[in-house]
Amino acid sequence: MSAEPIFKKIALIGAGLIGSSIAHAARRAHLAEHIAAFVPRAETRARAAAAGFADSLHGELAPSLRGADLVVLATPIGAYASLAPSVAEHLEKGAILSDVGSVKTVVVRDVGPHVPDGVHFIPGHPVAGTEQSGPEAGFAELFDGRWCILTPPPGTDAAAVEKLASFWRGCGSDVEIMDPKHHDLVLAITSHVPHLIAYNIVGTAADLETVTQSEVIKYSASGFRDFTRIAASDPTMWRDIFLNNREAVLEMLGRFNEDLAALQRAVRWGDGDALFNLFTRTRAIRRSIIEAGQDTAAPNFGRATPRSDKS
Amino acid sequence: MSAEPIFKKIALIGAGLIGSSIAHAARRAHLAEHIAAFVPRAETRARAAAAGFADSLHGELAPSLRGADLVVLATPIGAYASLAPSVAEHLEKGAILSDVGSVKTVVVRDVGPHVPDGVHFIPGHPVAGTEQSGPEAGFAELFDGRWCILTPPPGTDAAAVEKLASFWRGCGSDVEIMDPKHHDLVLAITSHVPHLIAYNIVGTAADLETVTQSEVIKYSASGFRDFTRIAASDPTMWRDIFLNNREAVLEMLGRFNEDLAALQRAVRWGDGDALFNLFTRTRAIRRSIIEAGQDTAAPNFGRATPRSDKS
Repeated sequence: MSAEPIFKKIALIGAGLIGSSIAHAARRAHLAEHIAAFVPRAETRARAAAAGFADSLHGELAPSLRGADLVVLATPIGAYASLAPSVAEHLEKGAILSDVGSVKTVVVRDVGPHVPDGVHFIPGHPVAGTEQSGPEAGFAELFDGRWCILTPPPGTDAAAVEKLASFWRGCGSDVEIMDPKHHDLVLAITSHVPHLIAYNIVGTAADLETVTQSEVIKYSASGFRDFTRIAASDPTMWRDIFLNNREAVLEMLGRFNEDLAALQRAVRWGDGDALFNLFTRTRAIRRSIIEAGQDTAAPNFGRATPRSDKS
Repeated sequence: MSAEPIFKKIALIGAGLIGSSIAHAARRAHLAEHIAAFVPRAETRARAAAAGFADSLHGELAPSLRGADLVVLATPIGAYASLAPSVAEHLEKGAILSDVGSVKTVVVRDVGPHVPDGVHFIPGHPVAGTEQSGPEAGFAELFDGRWCILTPPPGTDAAAVEKLASFWRGCGSDVEIMDPKHHDLVLAITSHVPHLIAYNIVGTAADLETVTQSEVIKYSASGFRDFTRIAASDPTMWRDIFLNNREAVLEMLGRFNEDLAALQRAVRWGDGDALFNLFTRTRAIRRSIIEAGQDTAAPNFGRATPRSDKS
């Protein structure tokens, strides 16, 4: 870690789970002299103040951006198009403009055209999160050992990209450079379709007439509860992701549906070998994820076992 | 806890995750004077011996069953039909015959007809588990705070049912009595279809040409990894579950597919309100599961965050 912080002033546009975690992580490693956050709603601003991760909190955009050499959009991506022109107006020469959205082609489309000359536009996506949201959900360790993907447009200043990359490394992440279109395809299968499926089965279970909702809840430890975690993620953020990564999501969902139809057929016709072969193959993927340090090997994710007060 | 154990001798037929956990839990609360386990394969028997949860281990059925007043089938359910006649031959008058299988109508069908007069046949299903398998995977706390469902046929001796129920309560579980057909429907939605979907998406991701498998693994923290845990469960056990609960699984999968088609349509046509409404509804279910003590409220299931060695 250098003695000199990487940035003089970071301006966070929005301070939910990701924005507040960036502030915590940047403080932990002293990556900025000043961390400002623009939080327009007074109620949310009060919660951010209580959480205490920012050096200054602003209800107006201009003062939050003044003197910032790193500006990070950290709102749901549906807000980018309306924010971009006003943000662009206040950007200073030499500043880096980045974001943390889970879809990247749309950022290039909605934000790119507004970026003034002399500002380095480098969209980003820290692949980390929890099912919680809001300014009090953030913590410094969120990005440790996770990947942050940057999608700089062709011709972006290499020194600016390296500066942002070293910021993310300081936050605990590994950094990968990727084409935005490829990013959106990778995230469609690793994140967006899994969330869609999780939301869907939780919805299906809630609507049954033959099985009561209290039964679904009581017996959820048999598998269902694993799906409910990601189906509890922020609704606005996820609505915006699906509206803005439609093409890639529909493509990956098409693959999923094809495969599920084949699996359904195997169940119907009692093809035990087909089932056994798939179930064996999928075990290996879990092992690779654990070896890559992207999940815990502890049974049940290392969840605490509730001690019954009966025995 | 009474000073006198509930059973003189428990005979476990099979000693994988569930069988060995029963042994650990029964020892913890001193629920039996003697715990025997029938483990036909020498290699598995050696592993069970090393794990040390049984008072006697047997390669032959007859000595494991001699004098047992509780016999528990704890093999994959596909083995029940061939085991049942030989087990029945050695059952003693007044004994309870139970099992731990995840499907119950098939147990009534395959095992029921072989049960001799004077033996109490009470199928059971402890709704608990981890993605791990084998005799070293068991632990005493597995059933704490979880539900155990019993499906006694009409006319079963009430005292025998209560005796088995108090055994499970001694293992830390709450006990519910249910009709086997209803059980299979409830588990189809809370467990079997979630597993099928998890196996399916992990398989879909493994087969892509446009996204590499190493990318799927690297970025799995964005949601995908939650699915891989249950897709790493024992392949034989799960093959047998799908082969033996076909009707209920196909019914619930039909519901899931209908709902997914509607969701896919909402994505295609950009129906943000439909997405937002579903995503809000599913949050409430997660809250209920946490309130019911069936999952942890800690973010990311309380997984340990890997400390990067870089920052």
